[in-house]
Parts: sequence; structure tokens; C-alpha cells
Amino acid sequence: MTKNKIWIDEICNNSRYGLKGDIIAKYKSKYQEIIILETEDYGKALMLDGCWMTTDQGEKYYHECLVHPALSSLKNFSKILIIGGGDGGTARECLKYRKLHYLDLVEIDEEVINLSKKYLANIGGKAWSDKRLNINIDDGFKWVNNTQDNYYDAIIIDSSDPSDFANKLFSSKFYTECKRVLKKDGILATQSESPESFKEIHLKIYCSIKNIFKNSATMYSFVPFYPSGIWSWTFASDTEDYFLKQNCQEIKSIEKNCEIWNLKFQEGAFKMMPSKIIREISMLTK
Amino acid sequence: MTKNKIWIDEICNNSRYGLKGDIIAKYKSKYQEIIILETEDYGKALMLDGCWMTTDQGEKYYHECLVHPALSSLKNFSKILIIGGGDGGTARECLKYRKLHYLDLVEIDEEVINLSKKYLANIGGKAWSDKRLNINIDDGFKWVNNTQDNYYDAIIIDSSDPSDFANKLFSSKFYTECKRVLKKDGILATQSESPESFKEIHLKIYCSIKNIFKNSATMYSFVPFYPSGIWSWTFASDTEDYFLKQNCQEIKSIEKNCEIWNLKFQEGAFKMMPSKIIREISMLTK
Repeated sequence: MTKNKIWIDEICNNSRYGLKGDIIAKYKSKYQEIIILETEDYGKALMLDGCWMTTDQGEKYYHECLVHPALSSLKNFSKILIIGGGDGGTARECLKYRKLHYLDLVEIDEEVINLSKKYLANIGGKAWSDKRLNINIDDGFKWVNNTQDNYYDAIIIDSSDPSDFANKLFSSKFYTECKRVLKKDGILATQSESPESFKEIHLKIYCSIKNIFKNSATMYSFVPFYPSGIWSWTFASDTEDYFLKQNCQEIKSIEKNCEIWNLKFQEGAFKMMPSKIIREISMLTK
Repeated sequence: MTKNKIWIDEICNNSRYGLKGDIIAKYKSKYQEIIILETEDYGKALMLDGCWMTTDQGEKYYHECLVHPALSSLKNFSKILIIGGGDGGTARECLKYRKLHYLDLVEIDEEVINLSKKYLANIGGKAWSDKRLNINIDDGFKWVNNTQDNYYDAIIIDSSDPSDFANKLFSSKFYTECKRVLKKDGILATQSESPESFKEIHLKIYCSIKNIFKNSATMYSFVPFYPSGIWSWTFASDTEDYFLKQNCQEIKSIEKNCEIWNLKFQEGAFKMMPSKIIREISMLTK
């Protein structure tokens, strides 16, 4: 069955994380090389510039942890912004909340959306046809710069790893602009890389957000096809530490429809900072 | 620098987890193929029958989570048994406790100990010369069968993955025997495989231990060079759920000397069962 398949790896430092499968599409967009694979273990998979982004069978480890700690803790919200997220998984999780009226998705690379819709249709699912979703092909940094103050209830940064065009999304300047366009009670949620495989950028995100927002916290969980398997997500708000507790009435029904995330899981994930990371942060913030 | 190095992978289903390095020793013992590598990312590494066992720079993710939830929660103990653990890392963590008087390590494959002492000396460290450590080259299953009732304060199963000779260490029969040789207040600790990459055996261990002991709980954490990066450890006792709280006076000093594990981390790790695993267990235990 699998003897003609090939190995495709993400190479990270001197470690590699490979999935066996077939390449079913390969495209060089204006921004990056996009590969779609049919893998044996995780179904269809999306790789951008050599890095695993998402897979049909494993994406929930990532998307559920990015969205629900933020949205389950907000009592009321109507307008949300996703930066990146061209595979549609983050939008799908957001649109589970009935009170959400308006969802802006700002993706710089139209081809990621086109190829995801064509080959990874399950990930976005019904989100692509949901009238609340507004797709904008634009630079997320510029989009936020051009947005009025106090506009969004939540901003969710679902970026790829740092690169020429994604670097800005990991900068203090960008987080400060996000704070400006967030409502007073708004929440910022961002993937914050691996404390093991991308430690420097992880620590940079952690410290930048901590400096800019009154409250912030990082959760650690698993993404089995990402380097090291250890990933992190950071949440921040300028009023309360919402993301550590749930206020949303419909959360029980959302929990039932999740594969990985649940309230107890989240409570645990916010406590799982490895001691060596605690010590590095304490040195950096002295 | 690295251009002459080769990739060595653990292949698990149709995923692979590779480290770049040099093979510095390769040995076929009576039980398994043992490879020692000098890797770029994790220092020296031990591979048994194609599976990553331990690495100089990453082993603490595993050993600290196997030992401290058990030993930090026992008020008093003097005699402990380790099954497996031929690399010495589990023994090293146990011997941090001053009140431990007697530590039996029962490893079936003498060559794992010999090669670990020679090439991975940092992992065992001072444990190898500690007078409290008694090394026994024997079959762990047989050893427990031949032990009198109520003998050990804790049994720590640090086995390799299931195989011809290791299968017995994952059986209900073995756990029942462990319970017999544990003191009334004793604790069983075992690595319980990955809920993602080895789901069937993970569920089997979970359910077997739950059936045999009055109290049991599983914690989920990270081992970056194991398949999927997600790993689990299961703890059990027949009196109290000790492993969920700490009673040990010297725990603060032990916490200071850990790289990954800390009390808050542990509290979180016991909550991180993914929803899909909760559902599978609930189906199995109906």
C-alpha cells in the first residue's frame, strides 16, 4: 500500500519530523512554496516553505487551543479579527459561537486559501460559506494599522513561523497596534511557537506581550506534527485575565464538539511552563 | 560542520522523528539492537530496536515526570524498585531523595547499562557509584514474582516500548503482582506510552491499572524526541491518590534541581487528557 509513497520532512535545526505520503499539489506563490500532501497518518497536510502548517487529522490540537481560551472567556463579543489562518481552521472554531456577528480574516497569501479550499476542505468546512466570514487578502500588519481604535473584541494571530513577510507579526510594534484596535475588554490570542524548537522567538513573544498588556498568560500543549511536539499559545488583555476562566454560557456545547480542548485541559495547559523556561524568563525580565 | 552527519529516524506508523548525527556505537545484544549516537541537537542519544529511548539534552522531560509525582508525594519511604531504566536517569532522580535507603534497579539487558555507563555517563551521573543503588541483571516480571509481599514503597516501571521481552511489563498480571509486593501505602509509577502514536497500548495500560488499584491517574506531558512529542505517565496506589499532592518536606529543594518538572507543572499535567481520549476511555469502561 505505502511502498510508493515518499517521506516529506520539516527540518528544524538538526531534527526532522516526517510524514509519508504523496505530494498532490505544489505551488510557488508570491510569498512562499505551498505543498499539499496526502499523508498516511494524518490525511491531507499543508506545508509552507518546508514547515508543517496543518493536517486534516491533527489540526484540532492547534486550532482549538488558539481559539477557545480566548472566546470561551469573553461574555459578549461581536467582531473578531483573524490574522493569517488561511486554512480556515481558526475561522471554523470561531464561528461555533452564535453570538459572533462579524469575522474578518486577513490572509496575505490568496493561494493558501485557494489551495486549502480545494484540497483541505474539511478544515474550513462550513466556515467558507458562512455569511459572517469576510475574507480579506491583505497584509495583517497593514490591516491593523489601518483599523480604527477600539474596534475588535478579539484578535487572533494565526501566523506561520517567522519569515521575511511574517516577522512583523511577532514584533512589539504589532502587538501595540493590536492593543489599540482592541476594545477595552478585548483579548489578544496568538500562537507563540515552541519553547523547545523555537525557544528564542517563544521567549521574545512572551516578553513583548507581557510588557504591552496588563495581563497575559501562556499555555503549553501538543501539536504532534510540529517540531518537538510542544507548542504554545499566548493570551493577553488589558483589563482582566479572562483567558484563565470561562464566562461564556454556550461553552459546554462547544466543549462537547471539541476533539482535544476541554475546560480542565485548558486549566492544566496554562500551568505547564517547563522549569527551564520559567528560569529563562526570570533572567530576561529581571 | 554537519555535512557528513547522517539522519537516524524512529519510524512510527507512517511518521518519522529524526536526529542528525554520527553513530558512535552499534551493538546487537541478546535482546535488542542498541545504537548510541552523537546528535547535533540533543547530545548523545540511545536508540533501542529503532526507537529513541533517551538523549543527553532531552532526557529530563521523561525522567523527572516518571519519578517526582510518585516520590514527592510519599511521606516516608526507604525501599524502591525500578524495572528497566538501564540508562540510569530514573535512578539518578530517585537518589535525589535523602530518605531513600535502598534502590533496586532490575534491567534485563546488561549491555544497555554497560553502553550507557560508557557513552551516556551524564545521565546516570553519580547514581552509578551511589551505595544505595543495587543493580540486578534480571527479568523484571520474574523479579516481582519472586519478591515477598509488602516489600517496596514504590515501583517505577521505566520500560522500553512493547516488544517480545517487554510485553509482560504491560500486562494486568504484572500490575497485580506489583500491587502485591508494594507496601499498603505504596505507589506504582509507569511510563504509559503516547496517547497519540501508541493509543491502543496507552488505553490498555490506563484501563488495566484503573481496574487493579483503588486510585490511579495519568499525566500528559512532552518528550520532544519521542513519536508525536506527547507522552504519558500513570500513577496508582491502593490507599490514597497521593500522586496528586505533595507531602515530602524536601520537595522544594528537589524542584529547584529539576529542568522541566515543578509542582505547578505537575498539577497541570494531570489535567491534560485530550477530549478524544476521555471519550475513548468512557466507551471502554462503560
